Amino acid sequence: MAENKKFVEEITPRDVDFAKWYTDIVKKADLIDYSSVKGCMIIRPYGYAIWENIQRILDKRFKNSGHENVYMPMFIPESLLNKEKKHVAGFAPEVAWVTHGGSELLQERLCVRPTSETLFCEHYAQIIHSHRDLPKLYNQWCSVVRWEKTTRPFLRSREFLWQEGHTAHATAEEAILETERMLSIYADFCCEDLNMPVIKGRKTESDKFAGAVATYAIEALMHDGKALQAGTSHYFGDGFARAFDITYTSKENKMEYVFQTSWGVSTRLMGGIIMSHGDDSGLVLPPAIAPVQVMIIPVAQHKEGVLDMAGQLCKRLQDLGIRTKVDDSDNSAGWKFSECEMKGIPLRLEIGPKDIEKNQCVMVRRDNREKVIVPLDKLENEAVSLLKTLGNAIYQKALDNLSRHTYNCVSLDEINTSLTEKGDGFVRAMWCGNEECETAIKEKTGVGSRCIPFEQINLSDKCICCGGKAETMVYWGKAY
Amino acid sequence: MAENKKFVEEITPRDVDFAKWYTDIVKKADLIDYSSVKGCMIIRPYGYAIWENIQRILDKRFKNSGHENVYMPMFIPESLLNKEKKHVAGFAPEVAWVTHGGSELLQERLCVRPTSETLFCEHYAQIIHSHRDLPKLYNQWCSVVRWEKTTRPFLRSREFLWQEGHTAHATAEEAILETERMLSIYADFCCEDLNMPVIKGRKTESDKFAGAVATYAIEALMHDGKALQAGTSHYFGDGFARAFDITYTSKENKMEYVFQTSWGVSTRLMGGIIMSHGDDSGLVLPPAIAPVQVMIIPVAQHKEGVLDMAGQLCKRLQDLGIRTKVDDSDNSAGWKFSECEMKGIPLRLEIGPKDIEKNQCVMVRRDNREKVIVPLDKLENEAVSLLKTLGNAIYQKALDNLSRHTYNCVSLDEINTSLTEKGDGFVRAMWCGNEECETAIKEKTGVGSRCIPFEQINLSDKCICCGGKAETMVYWGKAY
Repeated sequence: MAENKKFVEEITPRDVDFAKWYTDIVKKADLIDYSSVKGCMIIRPYGYAIWENIQRILDKRFKNSGHENVYMPMFIPESLLNKEKKHVAGFAPEVAWVTHGGSELLQERLCVRPTSETLFCEHYAQIIHSHRDLPKLYNQWCSVVRWEKTTRPFLRSREFLWQEGHTAHATAEEAILETERMLSIYADFCCEDLNMPVIKGRKTESDKFAGAVATYAIEALMHDGKALQAGTSHYFGDGFARAFDITYTSKENKMEYVFQTSWGVSTRLMGGIIMSHGDDSGLVLPPAIAPVQVMIIPVAQHKEGVLDMAGQLCKRLQDLGIRTKVDDSDNSAGWKFSECEMKGIPLRLEIGPKDIEKNQCVMVRRDNREKVIVPLDKLENEAVSLLKTLGNAIYQKALDNLSRHTYNCVSLDEINTSLTEKGDGFVRAMWCGNEECETAIKEKTGVGSRCIPFEQINLSDKCICCGGKAETMVYWGKAY
Repeated sequence: MAENKKFVEEITPRDVDFAKWYTDIVKKADLIDYSSVKGCMIIRPYGYAIWENIQRILDKRFKNSGHENVYMPMFIPESLLNKEKKHVAGFAPEVAWVTHGGSELLQERLCVRPTSETLFCEHYAQIIHSHRDLPKLYNQWCSVVRWEKTTRPFLRSREFLWQEGHTAHATAEEAILETERMLSIYADFCCEDLNMPVIKGRKTESDKFAGAVATYAIEALMHDGKALQAGTSHYFGDGFARAFDITYTSKENKMEYVFQTSWGVSTRLMGGIIMSHGDDSGLVLPPAIAPVQVMIIPVAQHKEGVLDMAGQLCKRLQDLGIRTKVDDSDNSAGWKFSECEMKGIPLRLEIGPKDIEKNQCVMVRRDNREKVIVPLDKLENEAVSLLKTLGNAIYQKALDNLSRHTYNCVSLDEINTSLTEKGDGFVRAMWCGNEECETAIKEKTGVGSRCIPFEQINLSDKCICCGGKAETMVYWGKAY
């Protein structure tokens, strides 16, 4: 087991240095690599396979809810970006500018899209004429660029992969419903497929998307008690429509502006998965998005019949649609076990000569290392059931972490005490709605507003900062 | 049928002006739209759905042949692009340069990838150490940018979508096999899934990819007799490996350079589909990549039971995995027929009260408008069979066009006469292998070398140009 030890020693323990543990995992589990392009990352095959599963599941959810995929240019002319004033103010400071094509200076510089509202708006102005053209429910899978100063793999990088939905509707009501519907699709996806509980809510005014009337978000709590904004959904009203002149003729034959939304999730979700479920042995992957759900490890594979049987079991699980592989490499069983753990493969299946004799195999869950002896005629049922159980268990574990680190506070002192005594987490506290108090709370306690949750609890009638009339309960936290 | 006429009138007939017919179709079939970003196109939902089908099928073929997907940064630092001299000479004149991040001037400018050899090489130098790390069989789906002067939708645009495979092998033999294998995968895909015959061959020295030892290509003949390079596969030898220092320790414990390949197809294939199969009524889509394979058009849909029955038939075909829709819009049947034709939907299924009475429906093939009366209990069998027949028929039609417009020539005069009398097409002619003759042939006849086909025919022992010893038979043609 010497290799085993060596393998594991290379990761910093999670409780010793969470940030180092995180970057160790992204490297050691072969998710990413760095290149000479500062702030950009290489997504390696194992990392990209996880992203492909995320894409596949989300894409199906989008299509089932009537959305269509398109592809817009990656460049935005400066004059186009400038059309909506708040939008350009928010994004211009962090865009990459293309100034030359070959050796020629461009007449107008182009930015590499940081987000594509302006391109979609220009297109919508061209193709929307009548109420019969509405709604337009478009989505795009692409990469976007934001010139960040400090970067971290998946969490904040200069280029990242994402999807951006952009929709146009006849009425404000419809657009608001769409904004909420997409937030729910994100939340369901996080819970059901990433086994990651999230809080649904609205962002405060200071934290809105540039150009939005309202921004909604899902917020997850990572193992270290910091919050991760995992997805956003924006309601634009008719602001962009007025800036880009997107009008339609209504049934009553009147010219009207459309109402719009946009919504997105990105490779950030990969960071969320790592920091929600990972442990000192590596990744723990939600079964729905694990590239390999069951890894079969033949024990004493040189003995007659072992590899054969491993292949047969593999085939049986694959026929059921379970992503299964056999590790028949020359490495020791111990090394293979460690690698399965590092890569977060939900189930490990061990099969050796003694198992074959007894007509059984051994299944080991990644999350709690529980071993189950499975009669071979129950293979399929047990694999399906264990994958489901594991998904539920890691969801419950993340939910427990969320509950344990959610503090109801009614004074700033209480916030500071909670964070000091129980560690970082979500603080629930009442707020008057004034930006001054929002800023003061951050200054005095270190936690910023994460969202105004849809599920409100009345903790007090007073703002935790100024003591004035409380308008709403807010989730506060330190954030990635 | 007034609408019907109006709809069709809007396309320029193919034989009147092929170029105009082409751009009419890409617009009228809702494949693309133009934006204010010069030389870039918007791929609309219907166009993108075709591309998604191409991606899905190719991706499966790549994965089945052991390839893994990755994602590299979209930027390449100038110094990295400069590492392989021939490569940078080929690409630098047509790249887009990023010079600013936000308001700051970058220390080193970055180009937007025109292709990613340099990024893959840098990565391979990092991750390849031992013979056990080989081969590396990577692929990437992304968009690339080349600053073209004149552009045409799908055929030549400043930004386009593609896949680029990049592989590293222990030996030259293995790398050459990979180059050939991927060309065959492309050729099979074009024949089987796009119903588009292609010629497999090698490019002449003057037409090689910048930095390649050998470039292989598949060439298709469009309806107008012009050639379309539909995919390329490059063998690099160890040239990039030496420039980027990609070495591995062999089984014999020696340091060796790797041998590499790259290969790609792009949204150009969309142009190939249009120009191979389309007609004066619009697109004709190969069934394998048609977003809708069967469109059900209810006749007299207001009559009781018609929409119900249309829905039932739709469900039955969908259950079989056939992409089927019902057009229950308010438009007239004539308008719906025209739209089905414009969009190239392979099969149209008509069902009305009289059909229901007789327990039948009518299926109409897009390619030849053949009507088949189908008893409802034979629905599934007939739909599957008609889709297959249609695929074969449009392949045969394209093959006939290819054969009819392939001319064996043994003198330059004969080339000119063939092209004048029979129209543009492929010219087969012997060549001595000298670039001077290649250039002279182009100057005197207008056709350039397309490829040196794998399937050689000896037409003569003499070069068609200089009369010297012929080295090989070459396909010549005018090209997109």
